Amino acid sequence: MRIARFSIDGNVAFGAVEGEGTIESGALVLDIIKGIPYTDFELSGTKVPLNKVRLLPPVLPNKVVAIGRNYAEHAAEMGNEVPDVPVTFFKPTTSVIGSGDAIEYPAFSQELHHEAELAVVIGRMCREVPRERVRDVVLGYTCANDVTARDVQRREPQWARAKGFDTSCPLGPWVETDLDPGDLTIQATVNGEQRQLGRTSDMVRSVEDLVVHITEAMTLLPGDVILTGTPAGVGPLHAGDEVAVTIEGIGTLTNKVIKRG
Amino acid sequence: MRIARFSIDGNVAFGAVEGEGTIESGALVLDIIKGIPYTDFELSGTKVPLNKVRLLPPVLPNKVVAIGRNYAEHAAEMGNEVPDVPVTFFKPTTSVIGSGDAIEYPAFSQELHHEAELAVVIGRMCREVPRERVRDVVLGYTCANDVTARDVQRREPQWARAKGFDTSCPLGPWVETDLDPGDLTIQATVNGEQRQLGRTSDMVRSVEDLVVHITEAMTLLPGDVILTGTPAGVGPLHAGDEVAVTIEGIGTLTNKVIKRG
Repeated sequence: MRIARFSIDGNVAFGAVEGEGTIESGALVLDIIKGIPYTDFELSGTKVPLNKVRLLPPVLPNKVVAIGRNYAEHAAEMGNEVPDVPVTFFKPTTSVIGSGDAIEYPAFSQELHHEAELAVVIGRMCREVPRERVRDVVLGYTCANDVTARDVQRREPQWARAKGFDTSCPLGPWVETDLDPGDLTIQATVNGEQRQLGRTSDMVRSVEDLVVHITEAMTLLPGDVILTGTPAGVGPLHAGDEVAVTIEGIGTLTNKVIKRG
Repeated sequence: MRIARFSIDGNVAFGAVEGEGTIESGALVLDIIKGIPYTDFELSGTKVPLNKVRLLPPVLPNKVVAIGRNYAEHAAEMGNEVPDVPVTFFKPTTSVIGSGDAIEYPAFSQELHHEAELAVVIGRMCREVPRERVRDVVLGYTCANDVTARDVQRREPQWARAKGFDTSCPLGPWVETDLDPGDLTIQATVNGEQRQLGRTSDMVRSVEDLVVHITEAMTLLPGDVILTGTPAGVGPLHAGDEVAVTIEGIGTLTNKVIKRG
């Protein structure tokens, strides 16, 4: 099932996406979910066309835990080795935006880069999750763009500002709950031109590895998100660009880049 | 004014602390605040003894932004230089505990260290704050312990696990709103023995510098917290220890260390 979060007439709700086609096609419909999707839920049967609502980030995370250098080719293009342990950092909730929202180019950087990533959405509160239980704590998967101020990242050893500025964490368009994340194509385009193309099977650490590693240290809450690293091909974004992250079996996350006003 | 957050009989509230003396003395009383302290508020006049309630973290932050190497002597004791730009990282909300709560020694570390820090509590949503407006966005100050898994920090280049594990961010005991943070003694004791002693006047970057630097990149929300770095004297914690952070004009944040169960 594809679960979207959206607003219509000032109300916010979750909905199950029905139909096939792009968001713009008008062929997709939302069946409004009663309550929240982290427990057993029912569909209301009340339906609204998806192109009549504003899509929001599909979850409101308490935290976003992100992983660096998890594709060998990307580590190599940045001049890095694949690390012995996963490189683990946070993006703050104030960085999260949805599909269709603008990435605001901040004044303190002159070099934003896109990084297409598979995002894992957590469905249950969990800590010290054994490998065989990882499947039980995952609600589903969505697309992410780990937008990075590359110039700031080079200057600052910890990445809170380089990867945590406002609008640096687009998520969406929705959460796909029925998906094996083991071998999916993941790509990024800028203004329709392909820039990144990879397969999740090239991840150095799998989704299972990462959930085990992170929850060894910290509790994850329903709606928390794990970004699983980016494949090779990262590159610059400029004001006016449209960047799209597409993952097989999920859909496309699209964001325009604007100057921060 | 000292603003505490507490629970009593299952209800959570903020209260203004009245009286002089330690928490244990029985001389302190809470006047319950109507609503939340981030806007104009009134005291209810309903009072409860502070030693009859459970103190909670004095704020529920959306994010905790922390600064490394902000005291020259501490940078030197760790073998580091004072950096050209502040070292900026996040601690997640799942790491926050209050005074009297236990620091749980996690299984993935064998070397926890205490780091006594002045914590800035934000009172208003803000971004790109000019230096002269910093005072307007600060609600007040509290004590923090930036508990660090030093062995993990040495192995992992980004500090999400080393400084973000559950219970690694004690805050409290309350927020002091009437305080000049410029030159306060800050100390840590372990089992009553002094380990860290410094003055906030030795901070490389001031509170003003840090708020400007952080909000250049990201929005801060009411209740967000900035940890301003630790003075020299950091050292190990063991299960069974009691660690206390005391800051002049604020009070004492006390936590026992236990093995994670």
